[in-house]
This record gives sequence, structure tokens and C-alpha cells, in this order.
Amino acid sequence: MPKMTRRGHFATIRIDIKAAILECVGTTFFLLFGLGGIQAATAGTLASSSESAPSQIEHVLYISTSMGLSLLVSAWLFFRITGGLFNPNVTLALMLVGVVPPVRFVLMCIAQLLGAIIASAILCGLTPGPLASNTFLQSDINAAQGVFIEMFATAALVTAVLMLAAEKHQATPFAPIGIGLTLFACHLFAVFYTGAAMNTARAFGPAVVTGFTYPHHWVYWLGPFLGSLLASGFYILLKYMHYQDLNPAQ
Amino acid sequence: MPKMTRRGHFATIRIDIKAAILECVGTTFFLLFGLGGIQAATAGTLASSSESAPSQIEHVLYISTSMGLSLLVSAWLFFRITGGLFNPNVTLALMLVGVVPPVRFVLMCIAQLLGAIIASAILCGLTPGPLASNTFLQSDINAAQGVFIEMFATAALVTAVLMLAAEKHQATPFAPIGIGLTLFACHLFAVFYTGAAMNTARAFGPAVVTGFTYPHHWVYWLGPFLGSLLASGFYILLKYMHYQDLNPAQ
Amino acid sequence: MPKMTRRGHFATIRIDIKAAILECVGTTFFLLFGLGGIQAATAGTLASSSESAPSQIEHVLYISTSMGLSLLVSAWLFFRITGGLFNPNVTLALMLVGVVPPVRFVLMCIAQLLGAIIASAILCGLTPGPLASNTFLQSDINAAQGVFIEMFATAALVTAVLMLAAEKHQATPFAPIGIGLTLFACHLFAVFYTGAAMNTARAFGPAVVTGFTYPHHWVYWLGPFLGSLLASGFYILLKYMHYQDLNPAQ
Amino acid sequence: MPKMTRRGHFATIRIDIKAAILECVGTTFFLLFGLGGIQAATAGTLASSSESAPSQIEHVLYISTSMGLSLLVSAWLFFRITGGLFNPNVTLALMLVGVVPPVRFVLMCIAQLLGAIIASAILCGLTPGPLASNTFLQSDINAAQGVFIEMFATAALVTAVLMLAAEKHQATPFAPIGIGLTLFACHLFAVFYTGAAMNTARAFGPAVVTGFTYPHHWVYWLGPFLGSLLASGFYILLKYMHYQDLNPAQ
Repeated sequence: MPKMTRRGHFATIRIDIKAAILECVGTTFFLLFGLGGIQAATAGTLASSSESAPSQIEHVLYISTSMGLSLLVSAWLFFRITGGLFNPNVTLALMLVGVVPPVRFVLMCIAQLLGAIIASAILCGLTPGPLASNTFLQSDINAAQGVFIEMFATAALVTAVLMLAAEKHQATPFAPIGIGLTLFACHLFAVFYTGAAMNTARAFGPAVVTGFTYPHHWVYWLGPFLGSLLASGFYILLKYMHYQDLNPAQ
Repeated sequence: MPKMTRRGHFATIRIDIKAAILECVGTTFFLLFGLGGIQAATAGTLASSSESAPSQIEHVLYISTSMGLSLLVSAWLFFRITGGLFNPNVTLALMLVGVVPPVRFVLMCIAQLLGAIIASAILCGLTPGPLASNTFLQSDINAAQGVFIEMFATAALVTAVLMLAAEKHQATPFAPIGIGLTLFACHLFAVFYTGAAMNTARAFGPAVVTGFTYPHHWVYWLGPFLGSLLASGFYILLKYMHYQDLNPAQ
Repeated sequence: MPKMTRRGHFATIRIDIKAAILECVGTTFFLLFGLGGIQAATAGTLASSSESAPSQIEHVLYISTSMGLSLLVSAWLFFRITGGLFNPNVTLALMLVGVVPPVRFVLMCIAQLLGAIIASAILCGLTPGPLASNTFLQSDINAAQGVFIEMFATAALVTAVLMLAAEKHQATPFAPIGIGLTLFACHLFAVFYTGAAMNTARAFGPAVVTGFTYPHHWVYWLGPFLGSLLASGFYILLKYMHYQDLNPAQ
Repeated sequence: MPKMTRRGHFATIRIDIKAAILECVGTTFFLLFGLGGIQAATAGTLASSSESAPSQIEHVLYISTSMGLSLLVSAWLFFRITGGLFNPNVTLALMLVGVVPPVRFVLMCIAQLLGAIIASAILCGLTPGPLASNTFLQSDINAAQGVFIEMFATAALVTAVLMLAAEKHQATPFAPIGIGLTLFACHLFAVFYTGAAMNTARAFGPAVVTGFTYPHHWVYWLGPFLGSLLASGFYILLKYMHYQDLNPAQ
């Protein structure tokens, strides 16, 4: 990340705009294949005859694999280009801990929200049937539970980015593997209950394209935002506690 | 790990307490997502209509993936903080081979048992329906078979920690991947028969929250304890045999 | 890659022919196991009784796993031999960005198409029933949608090869893992709709052996070709924008 | 591997015996969890009610995951101890290319066959019902097809060991990941047709414990033996062709 100079916030604006444009391409890449897998799973369900209808578990496992692997590979490909965040909540945490400057944060968020809309629109055009990748709360879950599930899952994802990619160590070049698998593991818990957004852009894109058809869209703004705060606070605490000294053998 | 000084067992007590607090957070992280996946799988089964009920195999594969990936990522994130053990039986083995001092062992065990209870309680609050993540013996299995299955599976997990993380070599920074996949592989065998605890804390947490509703809870204390002894003994034998000289090409 | 000398295009012809022969062996390896998994999945579907027929989702997940892991391991094994491309569209992109010289490009393409035919023929001989690994468009998809799905999926795969293997960095020796998982992730989206060729050779081989029984075979020539152009153009743009300077921390 | 000295074949006999004992432990480890997964999958199938019986595809995917991950982790744990081969056909290839001396080859084979029998016997004692991990030919496959499927799959596995572990390069410490995933990918093709032994010890162990109840057991001796020859020959050809010069960029 470029360090801020005395010339002020906008000294690196040209480079920030370039990064934002490429982050938009990367977010489109991530969500085209991630949400595309959800679209295929839903189409596959509808195409099944009654006796071979997939179970809920199959559906959820398919979606988790699709989102997890899609983030793993797209974050890997864009890791050395823009960092491969694709997620305003992760970008917020990186601003809060001082890795991303404020101007770049704003541009990246716009790029990520835009990329999510573009991916959803492309998916709409390329596949038959209505877009099936909206996040919504399962009927037995109330909004507060939804907010806290999204909060914990997002906090896990943000912690993965902070500990594997922002912290420098021998496994840092392989951080995208750990980050993608964190999304995978969190999906296996959360996707059944809330759709496992963990990323406001991922919830926002399909909602824009389909016209906000599900209630409680605010859950996917509040939950991931709180998760981002929780993980940033935990990371700041870790640095304050000099975590490297607790177990120096690793 | 801090070496013991002449000032005695408690010389590093401040650092040990810090490590224990963070290990408690890490254990909560691991089990929130690991047991959360089991909760989702069970809820998904109940939500299925009769003709699309998931098979036993799907259920078991989902649980194995969830627990395996959850340990993989949480151990990776906490690897350079506390070591990311999350398991009293693994901690015991590390004490027996001299890596973890006795005071830290006691504090870590308390932290791990506490973390498991916290994760189970959070899960209870965030999801509808009763907690579904208790370990219990499948009806065709007797208690002795359960003890030995848990013993072998725990021994495999402990051996993974000793050979990949405690031993230092080029792949050590990637040990959490191997440790998580070991839990995954052992689950594919053991989860159908015993629930594949391989970790007394993982069995204890849900049992506390639900009030010890299943018989044979002692199996999950004895089996993993024996597995810890078996793996420690094997590791001590390997060191005694100078295993590095048997196949120096690797 | 051997640099071209003043002696012209054919200076390294001996080495190019050797590489092409081994690339043919590698392509046969990749597709024997990748397409073999599809063959097994289809035979397994036919062998199921009505009440245990697999769902569409299971079938598609099985195929994606089979193709993804098969590319991951065969690309890894042949990475230091021929580069392990197994794909004329990837080879085209490497020629366009200057990594593969034209003569080698022609020889590699022939080898890859030939390897795909050989793998399909071996599979025909080793398994009962007709060859089940042709790519075809799902009935709700029109040819233009098919072309664009193939284009985007191929562009993702080609970008993976360019960013992970052609660019040199610390994770380059592990590029085959990222490339294989990219194929996996793209399959989870595309295999339901188009069969997810992303590789003209992969579509051509089974089509030759079964006599071009499906319409729209041209889709698997045009779509991957456009994807190859799209990814090459994006890579050239990245180099022109000096992407390394956008986020120098990674 | 210890180089042979003038004192003859038996100069390193003490070290060879130690290695063989540990290889026996490792083979037991690998097959206890690998075959244990198959046992659980079969028990899970029997326990399912008619409407939730698993499909053939689920059964095969579960077995492939179980065997693949089990080899991945057990080979990783034993990689720096004995090499972690667990397979007489792989050991044969390593002898043929000069990596393993003849005396060690004989001791390792005995250890591997013995380990497979021990794993099968432990599994018999720990789980209810008959042992379900025998390899047998699917009814539509003839013995010749079975031999060739086993030959190609074994050749792939042996090539993985030769190119990833025997050849030294930056990814060598991670060879067990590639070797385990090769077994996984080959299973996805072969397990439906032949049970995917790719390893005479893996077929022999359960057959001894259950009394050779299936016909065509010889297929699992001939097929993997031919695969071992095929892969050794290919590797010798690669060395003769100076494969490192064909694509020096990787």
C-alpha cells in the first residue's frame, strides 16, 4: 500500500483509481463464478424430477464449495494486483488498522459494490430463469440472530485477511488459500441460516438487479459492519498484547 | 514456547495467561463454525421433505467437511498467536514431549474447555431448535469399540501436530493445512460411529449446554486421553530411533 | 521457454517436438482421469435404482471435482516437463503474450488435440456403455449464451495460468494448485449450462470418438478462443499499467 | 536413501529394518482411516431408510474423499520418517529407478502387506458388520479392462511419487499433497469400476481378513505391477530426454 505523503490524501489518486478499476474487475470475476454456482445449483434443483430432488444439505454444500473456491482462486489471481479483497467490510477493517488509506477505501468500496452489480447483471443475461443468488433469512431465524451470525462469520473472514495477508510471514504468499477456505468453512455454518453474505457487496449486487425483493436487506449492511469492527478490535488487541511473544516457536 | 527458568514454573505466568485467553477465543472460533455446520446439517435434514431427505452419507460428509475446514482455518489463523491447538489432548501430548510447560498446560486446558462451552452457548442462542452437536455412540457400537475408535483417531491428530508443527522443517508454516485435513480424514471414518470428538473439549462443550443427555460421555475423556498417550509414545520412540536418518533424502 | 535465435523459428524444433510428444502424454493423462470421472458418474447414475437416483447437483459436483482435481494433479506432474497446459486456448494466450514461440504453439495444439482423442478412445475401450463425456448446451441455453459462458470461464482459466505460472513469484511452484482449483470453481458454474469445456481439445476429443453427435460443437471453438483473447488482453493491460506498483505490499 | 557401500547389500540392514517397522505402522495408519471411511459409507448406506438411500455417486465420492485425504495426511506425517509410500508398487518403481536398494524394497513390501492386514483386522474388531472394503470388479467390466484401469491409475500414482517426491525441487516438501490428490482424482474414475486399489497391499489386506471372497484377486497384483513398470519406463525416458531442458522457465 502506498504510504500517505505530506501532499495529502490525494497524492496517490492516480494509482488508487487504477487499483479501484482492477478491483472492480476482480469482484466481477469472484461473484460471476461464486453466484454462478448458486444459479446452477438452483437450476439443477428445478430440473430434477421429484424422486431425485437434491436434499437441502447437497444444495448448501454445493453453494459453499462454489463460493469458497471462487474466492480462493480469484483472490489468488488478484492478490499481487489489488490485494484481492472484493469486500467493503474487509476493506474497512484494513483502513481501521492503517493498511488502506481513506481515499483508496472509498474508491475500493465503490468498485466492489459496482463489481457485484455487474456480476449479477452478466449472470442474469447468461442464464435462464430469475436470478437465484439473493441472500435472505431462513424462516426460523429472526433479524437479530441474522445480524449476529453475519457478524461472527464476517469477523472470521476479516481475521483471516488480517492474520494471513496483512501480517507478513512465510505463508503470506499462500494467504488466498486460507482466506478462501475460511469463506468455505463459514458458509457451511451460515449459508443455511442467512445466505452467508459476509460481504455487503455480495448481498447488494443481486438485490439491485432483482429490485430488493427480500425483506431485511439491512441485516447484510449491519452484520458485516459489526463483524469488521469486531475483527479489527481483536487484531488491535493482538498487536497491543505483542502476540508474537506468546508462542515464539511458530 | 518459553523455556522454564530457575525462577520456577510461574516465571512466565503473565504470558501464559495471555496465551490462555487467546486460546479460549480461538477454541470458540473453531467450534462456533465447526459445530455450527453440524447444526445447519441437522436443521437442513429436518427441513427436507420426505423425498429429498439427505442420506446418512451426505450428512456425515457435510459434518466432516465442516469440522475439517473449520480446524484448518482456525488453526492457521491462531498458529502464530497461541499455536492453535484448541484441544486438551493435543496440549497433553505437547506437555509430555516437553514442548508445553505444566503451568501453561493447565491454563490452556481450562481455556479450551471454556471456549467449547462458549461456542456451544452462542450456537444455542443464534440458531433455532435444540443444539444438535453432541457426540454419542452409534447404536451398533459398544463402549469399548467407541474408546478405541476415539483413541486411534485422536492419536492420528496428535501425531499430525507433533510431526508437522512441533518438528521444524520447510513445511512447518503450512502445518495447519495438514492438521485440518487429518481431522477431516479421521472424521470420514469415525463420525458415523462415535461422532469423532478426538478432543475432550469438543465433546464437553455441547454436553454441558444440553445437560449431558447422552450416555457414555466418559468415552470422550478416556479415548482421546489414550490416543494422546499412544501418539506421545510413538513420537518419543521416533526421536529415540533418530527417524531423520532412516530416509535422509526427504 | 527457449528464446528465438537468428536461425529462425525452427532453431529449437527438436526440443519443441520432444515437448509436444510429452504434452500429448500429459493431455491424455489429464483427460483419461477427468473424463473418466464423468464416465463413472454417468454409469453410476444409470446403475442407481429409481429411489436412489443421484440429483443433478450431485452429478455436477462429482464432475467438477473430477475435472478440477485431475487438472490440478496432471498439471503439477507435468509442470516442470512441458508446463502442463493441455489446452490449445491456454497455449494461444501464452503465444500472444510472447511466452510460447509460434512453432511450439502449433506443435503443442496438435499434441493437445491428439491427446484428447487418445484419452477418449482409451476410455471407450476400458468402460462399458457409450462415451458420456461430450459437452453440449443445456436445453434452456441458446448458442450465444453458451459462447459467452465458455468465454468467461476460459478467460478465468487463462488468467490463472498467466498470473500464477507465467508471472514469477514465491507461489509459482504451486501454480498448478491454483490452476486446477480455477477449473474446479468455473465448472461449478458452467458445467450445468455448457459442460464447461474451457478447452477446445477437451470438447474435440470425445466429439471425434463419438462422431459429433451433439449440435453446436462450434461453440466450444469460438467461446474458448474469445476467452483466450479476453484474458490475453487483460494481462497485456495489467503489464501496461505496471500492476506491481498498485499494491506493493503483496 | 542410504547409498550402497562395498560391504554389500546388507550394510544398512539395521536401518532398513527400522524403516520397515515404521512403514508398517504408517501403512496401518493410512488404511485404518482410508478403509474405515469405506466401512462407514457402507454402514451408512445400510442404515438409510429406502427414501434416503444414498446414490452410487455419493457412495463413490465419499470413498474417494476418504482414501485420498487419508493418503494425503498419512504420507505427509510419514514423509520425513520412511518416505510414506505404503504401497509395494510404488516401492517397486523406486527400486527400478535406483532410489530404493533391493534389500529395503523386500523389507518395505513385507511391511506394507503386513500393515494392510493389521489395518483390516483392527477395522474388523472396531466396527459392526462384515468388512466392506474389498476391491472387486463391477459386473459390466471384464478382467482385461480391470487390469488396464488398475494399470493406468497406478501409473498415475507412481508418476506422482517420482515427479513430486523423488525429483527434488521447491515443491518437494509438499509432495504428499499432490500424491494424495492424485489418488483422489484416480479414485473418482476407477473406484466405480474396479475399486481403485492402485496398490496391491490395499487389495490384499481386506482379502486376507475376509478369506478372498471375490474372484479376480489376481487383477490387483497384475494391474498395479504393470502400472509400476509403465510409470518407471516413462520416468526413465524423461530423464533420458533431459526433460528439464524442454521448458526451462518452470
